[in-house]
Amino acid sequence: MGKPMALNLLKSSFPLVVYNRTKSKIEALAEAGAEVAESPAEVARKADVIITMVNDSSDVEEVVLGKKGVAEGAREGSVLIDMSSISPVVSKRIAEQLRKQGVQMLDAPVSGGEQGAKDATLAIMVGGEDSIYKECLPILKAMGKSVVLIGSNGAGQIAKLANQVIAALNIEALGEAFTLATKAGIDPQLLFEAIRGGLAGSNIMNSKIPLILDRNFEPGFKLALHQKDLKNALETARELNVPLPLTSLVQQMLIRLKGAGKGDLDNSVIVNFVEELANVEIKKTPTTKSQG
Amino acid sequence: MGKPMALNLLKSSFPLVVYNRTKSKIEALAEAGAEVAESPAEVARKADVIITMVNDSSDVEEVVLGKKGVAEGAREGSVLIDMSSISPVVSKRIAEQLRKQGVQMLDAPVSGGEQGAKDATLAIMVGGEDSIYKECLPILKAMGKSVVLIGSNGAGQIAKLANQVIAALNIEALGEAFTLATKAGIDPQLLFEAIRGGLAGSNIMNSKIPLILDRNFEPGFKLALHQKDLKNALETARELNVPLPLTSLVQQMLIRLKGAGKGDLDNSVIVNFVEELANVEIKKTPTTKSQG
Repeated sequence: MGKPMALNLLKSSFPLVVYNRTKSKIEALAEAGAEVAESPAEVARKADVIITMVNDSSDVEEVVLGKKGVAEGAREGSVLIDMSSISPVVSKRIAEQLRKQGVQMLDAPVSGGEQGAKDATLAIMVGGEDSIYKECLPILKAMGKSVVLIGSNGAGQIAKLANQVIAALNIEALGEAFTLATKAGIDPQLLFEAIRGGLAGSNIMNSKIPLILDRNFEPGFKLALHQKDLKNALETARELNVPLPLTSLVQQMLIRLKGAGKGDLDNSVIVNFVEELANVEIKKTPTTKSQG
Repeated sequence: MGKPMALNLLKSSFPLVVYNRTKSKIEALAEAGAEVAESPAEVARKADVIITMVNDSSDVEEVVLGKKGVAEGAREGSVLIDMSSISPVVSKRIAEQLRKQGVQMLDAPVSGGEQGAKDATLAIMVGGEDSIYKECLPILKAMGKSVVLIGSNGAGQIAKLANQVIAALNIEALGEAFTLATKAGIDPQLLFEAIRGGLAGSNIMNSKIPLILDRNFEPGFKLALHQKDLKNALETARELNVPLPLTSLVQQMLIRLKGAGKGDLDNSVIVNFVEELANVEIKKTPTTKSQG
């Protein structure tokens, strides 16, 4: 996700210093005019606003607070925008740590996937101080279509977790409904056409069902990353004394699917869980006819 | 639902004979030009196409196969369109019974609620023979916007159950996600604005969240009827050896909510289950500010 987002910043004429552990991943950015740094600390020394986009809480901790990390190089008055999807608790803790050295932080996780990153149509959910948010808005707008300040530090991460809970449960809902119908002998393509315009219709249904019917589980958004998001949601919910019965059950399904070697497939592969239990596949039938 | 649907048939100039156990409920139809019958059998004697719209499987069995029911009056060559949402198994059995006396049947349950019935924008999912479907299409089009033949007898009911499984699970997904965010101190209105345009967005979210934020649980579509639909879905799934873990869990929640006297409220009250466990309400905060 980081590369297409960085390319959009360059397109909007923001001067850029970039770093990645794997240098080959930023070659395209160097060619497009970005300066290449040797460490997160060097990026931070050279920039007013530092953006991080990595996998999980521990990665952000390392790249920000670790050796040669952002905190080592960041000047007083600079801002860190962490656009990774991580634990709100960890995000808040890092923000507090940075504040001690005069560095402000926004958490700004995104939704919209690889395609949204390329098209600069990401939904960006922001946590942090209003004044910092306003300062950074032009930068965020260069990468996303919808940018919303949700609340103070960590609030962007909370919103992202809520988003991921809904997405996972909506996919599993499709799995149960379409598996039932397919096992009953219904053409799932006809079911899709019959219900997509009604109350059951959703962005998940419109984007995932055509791929599921083609048995195309190329990511997209990897199941393993969605599993990580639900883990963070359940940990956050536990600390808040909020029981999440369905999220907890779907998390178990994701653990099973990841264990079965499907972690690198698209998260729509969640439907496999019930498909396998019912011994049926939701797929196009050769006789499918489209109807108005 | 029956009354507004019948009014739309009259508007499209279909001559109508109507029956209801409670006569006051069809006064408006009589005034609009419908002939009032004294029994389902009398309706059947006078009509080429008979439409039933009642609550559950046992009601359809009674009105069709019971004393002075449709089967007693129906002429050979006539068609019964059952638009109730009932068990696919029962629907198929009634179709077989009627076929013996030369009466054809379509199951044609609808989605779209009271408002869709009034506006003639219902989604109608049809099961039955292609030729009968084509004969009845003008009648169905007078009541709905999307009419799709899904398969043979019972297939319309299966599609409706799939629709209801997705709807129920999507509402509970909102319940878990918005309860978590609200308990974390997030304004749920801002969360809604931040995520509705992304992958988590859905027709359920757009139609239910504004009402939930206003704590308005007036139906709409009653929780008790949704509970009945999930019961039918789980029974059908059991006969097909399809386990539905989330549907089963949500059904338990609906049983609890119905037991707590909420059966006549809108099905969006499903969010109450997790709200109560977490001791928080998803509602507008006085300080809510809308953002772009």
